Amino acid sequence: MTATLYGLGVGPGDPDLITIKALNILKSAPVIAYPAPDDGDSLARAIAAPHLPGDQIEIAIRTPMVVARFPAQDVYDRYGGEIAGHLDGGRDVALICEGDPFLYGSFMYIHQRLAPTHRVVVVPGVSSVGACAAAAGLPLVSRNQVLSVIPAPLDEDELERRLAITDAAAVMKVGRHLDKVRRVLDRLGRADDAWYVERATMEAERVLPLADLDGDRAPYFSMILVRRREEVDR
Amino acid sequence: MTATLYGLGVGPGDPDLITIKALNILKSAPVIAYPAPDDGDSLARAIAAPHLPGDQIEIAIRTPMVVARFPAQDVYDRYGGEIAGHLDGGRDVALICEGDPFLYGSFMYIHQRLAPTHRVVVVPGVSSVGACAAAAGLPLVSRNQVLSVIPAPLDEDELERRLAITDAAAVMKVGRHLDKVRRVLDRLGRADDAWYVERATMEAERVLPLADLDGDRAPYFSMILVRRREEVDR
Repeated sequence: MTATLYGLGVGPGDPDLITIKALNILKSAPVIAYPAPDDGDSLARAIAAPHLPGDQIEIAIRTPMVVARFPAQDVYDRYGGEIAGHLDGGRDVALICEGDPFLYGSFMYIHQRLAPTHRVVVVPGVSSVGACAAAAGLPLVSRNQVLSVIPAPLDEDELERRLAITDAAAVMKVGRHLDKVRRVLDRLGRADDAWYVERATMEAERVLPLADLDGDRAPYFSMILVRRREEVDR
Repeated sequence: MTATLYGLGVGPGDPDLITIKALNILKSAPVIAYPAPDDGDSLARAIAAPHLPGDQIEIAIRTPMVVARFPAQDVYDRYGGEIAGHLDGGRDVALICEGDPFLYGSFMYIHQRLAPTHRVVVVPGVSSVGACAAAAGLPLVSRNQVLSVIPAPLDEDELERRLAITDAAAVMKVGRHLDKVRRVLDRLGRADDAWYVERATMEAERVLPLADLDGDRAPYFSMILVRRREEVDR
């Protein structure tokens, strides 16, 4: 039996929003890995940093920033191999994931490569959806309402079709798509039910009604929450 | 300044899936409150139980089990008043919520009553969506895919309309709606992409392909996950 690969959700940003379970694994794994930009610091590592014992082998999974649809297969093949080497040598590896590992996480590319041959345990984390709703003080869905998690990079028509039929929405990865999301919400008459949340639970957190937000761009770590205000009963 | 009401997400079931932040508040609040059935034990309290110091005032928010659309307004008025009394007396109150407080949580009924007049802080928690995906080892969404969280009690047509257009879905509150969900997935040709998860992260956790599940009912704490298997790239 080889060692275990952990997909470790560490939450949306505040280091105290890590779970006890993830914390224990994070502290005891001899090897940690985390996604990182091609050049610069890893947000996942920064979230975990206050908890690290300081004597672990570290693997920064650096992927080129590409707008293209497909991730860098070769890169994941290579890191998958490096992680497998540790597992085969009997060393557990904790792969640190922002938010939740299986919601838009790059962990899945390592998971796909290693799950067929190695023991993999996924530890769910607090996602940015709940974190943004908490930051905005905004109950998102109740009873039989539908919540859609919608990436902002979708085509404008597609975005509109999705937003038109949902009770509540979390529009992710806003970034340079801010104006497009605004136009769609205006057409749907839902701009006044929308909130903008930037860097939820982090020090630079910003929360405001979308209508009050200036500019036509937002950071990647921003979200627009939309809900049916009138449908929430007392 | 009065004291603070905390909406405390304690995660999906495993007591170790509570966050450090929620744990600290849970241990230090002089008053805890939690939803409970009219008759019987509170799941929220059970999740928090291993962490409780044992000397807190406890408020069980008991609401009659009703199938009706509207919650028991009078009941929430009464408990809201009781909690406000503690806050006005300078005692912080931690309201324990399964999963995340703002995703289908009854916390919102207390929040609505007290947020206009009192300090309320919401601590997001690990939701059952991420927990079920982790239990099933199932990456739910990547890149620009849409995830819909859909309550199973919706009408069959409505359920079909929602499921037809989403990349991935978490169908919640399955219970006695199991057969209906199955029929819809069969019609959409997506039954083979569906997984059934019961009591994720708890001792009695069950995970199996929906096709392998016998019977026509499921517990309330069960979920059906659907995703586009073919769309996940290596």
